[in-house]
Amino acid sequence: LNTFGAQVLYDFAAEPGNNELSIREGETITITNQNIGGGWIEAKNSKGEVGLVPEDYIEVSAEDDEWDEEWDDVKSSGGYAESEAGEGGAINRGGAHGSSMKIALNNGEVGPVWAYPDYQLDCVVADPKKGSKLYGLKSYIEYQVTPTTTNKPVNHRYKHFDWLYERLLEKFGSAIPIPCLPDKQVAGRFEDEFIKMRMERLQGWMTRMCRHPVISSSEVFQLFLSYKDEKDWKMGKRKAEKDETVGVMVFSTIEPEGLPDLDLIEVEQKCEQFNRFTRAMDDGVKDLLTIGNEHWKRCTGPLPKEYQRIGKAFQNLSSVFTSSGYEGEAALTDALTAAGKTYEEIAQMVAEQPKKDLHFLMETNNEYKGLLGCFPDTVGVHKAAIEKVKEADKLVAAGKITPSDKTTMSKRASTMSYSLQAEMNHFHSNRIYDYNRVMQQYLEQQVKFYEMIAEKLRHAHSRFTTM
Amino acid sequence: LNTFGAQVLYDFAAEPGNNELSIREGETITITNQNIGGGWIEAKNSKGEVGLVPEDYIEVSAEDDEWDEEWDDVKSSGGYAESEAGEGGAINRGGAHGSSMKIALNNGEVGPVWAYPDYQLDCVVADPKKGSKLYGLKSYIEYQVTPTTTNKPVNHRYKHFDWLYERLLEKFGSAIPIPCLPDKQVAGRFEDEFIKMRMERLQGWMTRMCRHPVISSSEVFQLFLSYKDEKDWKMGKRKAEKDETVGVMVFSTIEPEGLPDLDLIEVEQKCEQFNRFTRAMDDGVKDLLTIGNEHWKRCTGPLPKEYQRIGKAFQNLSSVFTSSGYEGEAALTDALTAAGKTYEEIAQMVAEQPKKDLHFLMETNNEYKGLLGCFPDTVGVHKAAIEKVKEADKLVAAGKITPSDKTTMSKRASTMSYSLQAEMNHFHSNRIYDYNRVMQQYLEQQVKFYEMIAEKLRHAHSRFTTM
Repeated sequence: LNTFGAQVLYDFAAEPGNNELSIREGETITITNQNIGGGWIEAKNSKGEVGLVPEDYIEVSAEDDEWDEEWDDVKSSGGYAESEAGEGGAINRGGAHGSSMKIALNNGEVGPVWAYPDYQLDCVVADPKKGSKLYGLKSYIEYQVTPTTTNKPVNHRYKHFDWLYERLLEKFGSAIPIPCLPDKQVAGRFEDEFIKMRMERLQGWMTRMCRHPVISSSEVFQLFLSYKDEKDWKMGKRKAEKDETVGVMVFSTIEPEGLPDLDLIEVEQKCEQFNRFTRAMDDGVKDLLTIGNEHWKRCTGPLPKEYQRIGKAFQNLSSVFTSSGYEGEAALTDALTAAGKTYEEIAQMVAEQPKKDLHFLMETNNEYKGLLGCFPDTVGVHKAAIEKVKEADKLVAAGKITPSDKTTMSKRASTMSYSLQAEMNHFHSNRIYDYNRVMQQYLEQQVKFYEMIAEKLRHAHSRFTTM
Repeated sequence: LNTFGAQVLYDFAAEPGNNELSIREGETITITNQNIGGGWIEAKNSKGEVGLVPEDYIEVSAEDDEWDEEWDDVKSSGGYAESEAGEGGAINRGGAHGSSMKIALNNGEVGPVWAYPDYQLDCVVADPKKGSKLYGLKSYIEYQVTPTTTNKPVNHRYKHFDWLYERLLEKFGSAIPIPCLPDKQVAGRFEDEFIKMRMERLQGWMTRMCRHPVISSSEVFQLFLSYKDEKDWKMGKRKAEKDETVGVMVFSTIEPEGLPDLDLIEVEQKCEQFNRFTRAMDDGVKDLLTIGNEHWKRCTGPLPKEYQRIGKAFQNLSSVFTSSGYEGEAALTDALTAAGKTYEEIAQMVAEQPKKDLHFLMETNNEYKGLLGCFPDTVGVHKAAIEKVKEADKLVAAGKITPSDKTTMSKRASTMSYSLQAEMNHFHSNRIYDYNRVMQQYLEQQVKFYEMIAEKLRHAHSRFTTM
């Protein structure tokens, strides 16, 4: 059997004594045995070290055309059959604006805002299925993505999401912060845990993209959500890759409807304020994440152990009492045993609680950490444009540009400012919604948790008697 | 001003840098300055080291007659005036059995049991008052002890309790385990904390003594609880000290009413079983105390700190959001601040909770630790007697004792066995009551605690909104 080269997708730290091999993202390794099973394969690194690595952490370098190969996946998993009758998809796509569409700005009470659609698009990422190719060597996970508009599922592999991200970044990156795909931090080293966590995060990312009026109505995004069939998908993909309205060019498609040109000073101030805000929020979010991590450790480590020991101590005392040989001991010993068991149950609850509440608080803040990381670039593009306009007079004097060039430049700059402000407002309104929701979720679960404990203890209490 | 010698009552470890002097229980020190105040005095130890020590930890060696001196205390604190009209006290004492009384044994379903009075005696130890003598140098605390029978308070200093303990140990020690007075472990190094804790423990000790039918009805105990006046007290004290029915002699006052002599083998087995039980319970109790201590540390240390940090993180995020300059931010920031404050309140609750529940669980187990420590002696006396009876035949053969001596010996031995069994049953029934009560107390407080937290969080939750 010949061997295959493979690309390492994520860092993986070998556990000592498990014949595992530590690998680093981007590293190229050679697969020496794919018949290990359990989600593991044997590989050799450039130093010649051989060991086991999780197959989800690597991607076999394939020789055939990526897209055709990929298409095979989609077909193989029945995605085609599903979307065969996908007229809805087509209709929906038809409804989407082309890449030369105009983006409107309304002047809401908070200032410029994007024109939001009447119907809020969303989608469901679900039902991860394992596929494989290259004679079973190369396995991958395919997720089912179902837009709420067509309600017709399409199938996508992680690399398709990654392709979409690249397109969105290229096209809208200068105007809209596009958060990275959730891939770098790997939740658990076990396959199922890993897939579940990644799906959850892809869902979060897609929902965020759906919520953005510019992105969700873009042709490439509509393609991703509701391609009609393989032909449609392939053509759409090639078209998107050829799209030339990318980078700063995207601003040419933005038209601040009936809004006057902006005063540059005012614009700069708004920029600065937003910069300060994102930096401060970034600190706050990171702070919360640090504390959350420590709390998670305590809740899953020492704390339940202690409740367990308390429970054991009560039960132990109970069994000592049982040995007294004294009549009428039973009521107390039963009650003590029950109380002991209750504290063992509480230990369990404490250990499992973070998954029910802290988890979502952490995920949301992780998402925002990523999102906030994108803003400096977006704001940077904008600042550069303003600087240019500031120099415009000199350039005109030096005959480097014509006065009408200058007019165009400042018109462009004020358009960028409007879109940046619209983007700020979009960010703020989403942030307010997201933090209200996640805090509700967190506190609701916390209340349930403490009520449950109180209930259990009330029951344990009722078993003791002092008549 | 001349100096006084003083006895150290408890170990005291000096805190570095506070000019304090470490002293050990039993050590003799010299007081060099009594005008420090705040419960501290300056003293010199035998090595000539000088420093501050808490005045409650030492007792000045007095030259005058202890009892007269002590009597002054009682008068000075108005104890006399209180019990002047104390006819009730006199009557009650009259009702008590003299030291030559007979103690009855009834054969209940659990075996031999003491004859319990119809009315359960109890008393309240309260209202500690500070008195002083030797020109204000020597200060002491006087507690008010009020028996539920007469409801007439008498005053006693700790040393009076100690005197009572010595009498009870001397008189009943062979038949009844007399738990030590709570004095060695000092709760806090601050005067008030110390007094409060000691009073609480003296209350526990007195209640336990009151509950024992033999002790509570003894003349010396009745004297302590309800002496009529100084004369009565002095005479009673001297009489008690002259009492000759002490040690094993106490068994001569015990009469197993109409109960047959016991089979020694059976008796020995009962002894062994009880020995095993008390040892096992001693382990169980110590285990619970260890775990309780660790839990106490966590609840008052790292845990509240963490809740506090969570609360601060929420409030911090809230103030960042306030700086966004975005309209309609207020509802979220108010809710976030409230949630943050809630977690700070929870931190406070967590830190204060052990005083409300764990404290009593620990105290009860500490009390039992002490009580269990007394049993080996009591059982030992009993074993010795049995051994003696076993040798009796040889002794008769050797003409060392008469056959009638032997009959008396085995009669005595079986009386001792009956009283030991009565004592075991007394211990068991009290233990069952005490542990039911303390567990009820503990769990009730725990339920309140978790319900309170849930309630606070429910309120915090209600402030978030996602329309």
